[in-house]
Amino acid sequence: MSDPFVVVGADAAGLSAASKFRRTAPDREVVVFEKGRWISYAYCGMPYFIEGLVERMSDLLSLSPSEVDERGIDLRRGYEVVAVDPDVKRVTVETADGDRFEQPYGDLLVATGGRATTGPFDVRGLDGAFTLHDMDTAAAIDAYVAEPDEYDPERADVSAVDRDRVERNAAMAAPETAAIIGGGYVGVETAEALAERGLDVHLFHRSGHLLSDFGAAVGERVEAELTERGVTIHTNAPVDSIDGNDRIEAVAFGIGDDGTDAESLAVDMAVVGVGIRPNTELLDDTGVALGEGGAISTDEHGRTNLPDVYAAGDCATARHAVTGEEAWMPLGLTANRAGRAIGATIAGDPTPVGDIAATAVVKAFDMEAGRAGLLDEDEALEAGFDPVRETVTAGSRSGYYPGAAETDVTLVADRDTGRLLGGSIAGPDRAAVRIDTVATALEADMTVGEVERLDLAYAPPFSPVWDPILVAAKVLNGKIDG
Amino acid sequence: MSDPFVVVGADAAGLSAASKFRRTAPDREVVVFEKGRWISYAYCGMPYFIEGLVERMSDLLSLSPSEVDERGIDLRRGYEVVAVDPDVKRVTVETADGDRFEQPYGDLLVATGGRATTGPFDVRGLDGAFTLHDMDTAAAIDAYVAEPDEYDPERADVSAVDRDRVERNAAMAAPETAAIIGGGYVGVETAEALAERGLDVHLFHRSGHLLSDFGAAVGERVEAELTERGVTIHTNAPVDSIDGNDRIEAVAFGIGDDGTDAESLAVDMAVVGVGIRPNTELLDDTGVALGEGGAISTDEHGRTNLPDVYAAGDCATARHAVTGEEAWMPLGLTANRAGRAIGATIAGDPTPVGDIAATAVVKAFDMEAGRAGLLDEDEALEAGFDPVRETVTAGSRSGYYPGAAETDVTLVADRDTGRLLGGSIAGPDRAAVRIDTVATALEADMTVGEVERLDLAYAPPFSPVWDPILVAAKVLNGKIDG
Repeated sequence: MSDPFVVVGADAAGLSAASKFRRTAPDREVVVFEKGRWISYAYCGMPYFIEGLVERMSDLLSLSPSEVDERGIDLRRGYEVVAVDPDVKRVTVETADGDRFEQPYGDLLVATGGRATTGPFDVRGLDGAFTLHDMDTAAAIDAYVAEPDEYDPERADVSAVDRDRVERNAAMAAPETAAIIGGGYVGVETAEALAERGLDVHLFHRSGHLLSDFGAAVGERVEAELTERGVTIHTNAPVDSIDGNDRIEAVAFGIGDDGTDAESLAVDMAVVGVGIRPNTELLDDTGVALGEGGAISTDEHGRTNLPDVYAAGDCATARHAVTGEEAWMPLGLTANRAGRAIGATIAGDPTPVGDIAATAVVKAFDMEAGRAGLLDEDEALEAGFDPVRETVTAGSRSGYYPGAAETDVTLVADRDTGRLLGGSIAGPDRAAVRIDTVATALEADMTVGEVERLDLAYAPPFSPVWDPILVAAKVLNGKIDG
Repeated sequence: MSDPFVVVGADAAGLSAASKFRRTAPDREVVVFEKGRWISYAYCGMPYFIEGLVERMSDLLSLSPSEVDERGIDLRRGYEVVAVDPDVKRVTVETADGDRFEQPYGDLLVATGGRATTGPFDVRGLDGAFTLHDMDTAAAIDAYVAEPDEYDPERADVSAVDRDRVERNAAMAAPETAAIIGGGYVGVETAEALAERGLDVHLFHRSGHLLSDFGAAVGERVEAELTERGVTIHTNAPVDSIDGNDRIEAVAFGIGDDGTDAESLAVDMAVVGVGIRPNTELLDDTGVALGEGGAISTDEHGRTNLPDVYAAGDCATARHAVTGEEAWMPLGLTANRAGRAIGATIAGDPTPVGDIAATAVVKAFDMEAGRAGLLDEDEALEAGFDPVRETVTAGSRSGYYPGAAETDVTLVADRDTGRLLGGSIAGPDRAAVRIDTVATALEADMTVGEVERLDLAYAPPFSPVWDPILVAAKVLNGKIDG
């Protein structure tokens, strides 16, 4: 009997791999070690739980431990893998009680995920200051935002939750003013959530427009929507410090490179969302190759450079469909897809993990936005392209049909070859899902001329004769030809 | 000075060609002959005008005659081209007054469009019975549906409208019960329109499910939605006759191949929407080659087999992206795109008209549906494929996010090569625009395995981690591999 398939981490990538492996090779053993108590939760749903759109925290769990068990997966919660020895194909495991043992593996998947970076801010020990990257924090934020006499403890209805922390936060007076630090998608979604909960929300962003990865055209539309909904946006406003004793009292911001003085804003809540970093420490002394973003380098089948060691999810790189190079984009589908493919491969059905098109979508109140591929000028130049771009504003429906709304589409192409490199979209009327057309065209290596001739859907309630993406392709193609 | 570029027909294809030609070759002459008085109207908007969602008929005009004039296009309304002599490159034109003259051309574009077929029904002379394919009929239907004292003559605010016909219809008592004959997209959209106007609507369809071109899965969802909204659906119910003296009184239906007796339904309105046919008679004696559907055969640049004679729009074929063969799909984007490409080509910038993916979308109340490529079993077999299909029902958003709705996706692939052949989608939550992903994948000749690995957008408000299209690809791919 061969050694089992060992998975480190019981979230999207790890459990997708274990499940697919068991279905494909039902007679072989798989063990999943998870150092915490939470498994398989919907990270992306946390802002909507805080907003109150999701009633119960348990709604955010994709799989319960007993469902994992029913799949024939040996799941061990509270078991931390603390060392990997690839020479003898063995991991060292430490239990919650402090016991240690050695576990041999046939194949190993490292799916350790990522963790929120906090920048210069240490929010530990400061009530009202949070870094949103796990369910316990989401539960604590939800409790903190509620008035003590209005908090419903049934909201955090998962046994794994840190109930002491929830209760402590629920007992505090509800905040009135919140600073959100970081204008990426977590920041934008949290701004919506807290504004909908009735707070006066200030969103601070280091650079000139929100959602830097989505490009300026999208950032401006999202900023306009947030402003209209009462959120105060501070761009070019790096936060310098989060101040207070025991409980947060203020944030200081605006010390720019030009030495301008910091301003201070009194707040009774802050949420830091400045980015995440990959958890790779487990492989520190193994000779593993790290790549883009410090994540674990993987090949088209999710293999690392260590024999029989795979990596997937937020701790691993993936191949970018446009550049053909390794990239690090910690997103949900990437993790699920890579985990599933690796599970199949290890079970004997070699399956590519697939390229990423760096597709992302985000909602801010009624504004929808999407992006895919290479949008940034410097990134495109670095990848060897000569980028040319065009932003158009087009209607989302036939002009005479009620609900037609201005939709901004940006497309970027390579001047020499005409190849589509990337695109973004923003608008209130079904804009986000349209980015899938761009993502598909990118994965097919289409030129912008080919995009211009796509036979996209037309009917007055859904699109004008020339879909906004076709309009952008037409104009950009004219610019390249001209 | 060379002879002008002559265009026959001033609708989407003709005016797109003339406009692009003038922009590309501003010094050259273009003449557009239009036998009627209407130009450049939004055919697809007519049901929404009848529904009352569009307030004024003039909202449906893309271009006014004076705007055409401002583009430097010599537009002659009331001028019918009655003959083409390709040997001497000359057309014969007859004016509304009955005068005739010869017009030489350098290049000729035939953009004569299509006309509604009426099946066995002659609705002329029968008040309350209509065939919806032109603006005068849309105006007449709108007037007929209104109570005489409630009709607003400002609705039909276009000088070209047949005002006598409008007034005669407006004066009649408003109908209570309408039969719609034909369950294609015109029939479905008109059913919605008349039901929203308060009529008791019966929709008759010859075959077993509505929207035959969209496949059974879509037809069933649309039928359920129409039924829920109070429309009575009669499938497998060919209408035998439309009966009445002066004004319509009843429709007889249900004489099947099995000799079942016809039933009669008392109605005071009927709309026939059983299909359209291409207007090709102008080229009858020229040796022009006709293709699929009896439409004028064209090549990748829109050329017919006659020298310097092009055809575009509802009268012409186009190349199908999946089969590579000629196909006839009279749709709005195809006409606009081909016209524009032909205008550029004739002006000296050779531009392909582009393949069609046979993409179509339709709305029935809150149900959205789309289709692309080859869905029909027999059509796929005929094109040399071994079709295998799968229909899945998946959520439109993360399950915990409000508004998630069941979305049905059907994908068809070739068993031998795995190539995607077609797809359809139906659901109430942003389903229609998602068909663009399928259309793009079809134009890129993707396999269903490649579709399964597409990096489509994920965020809880817009899509589950696995987009419904990815779910369908996953299941279909498993079926092919298995």
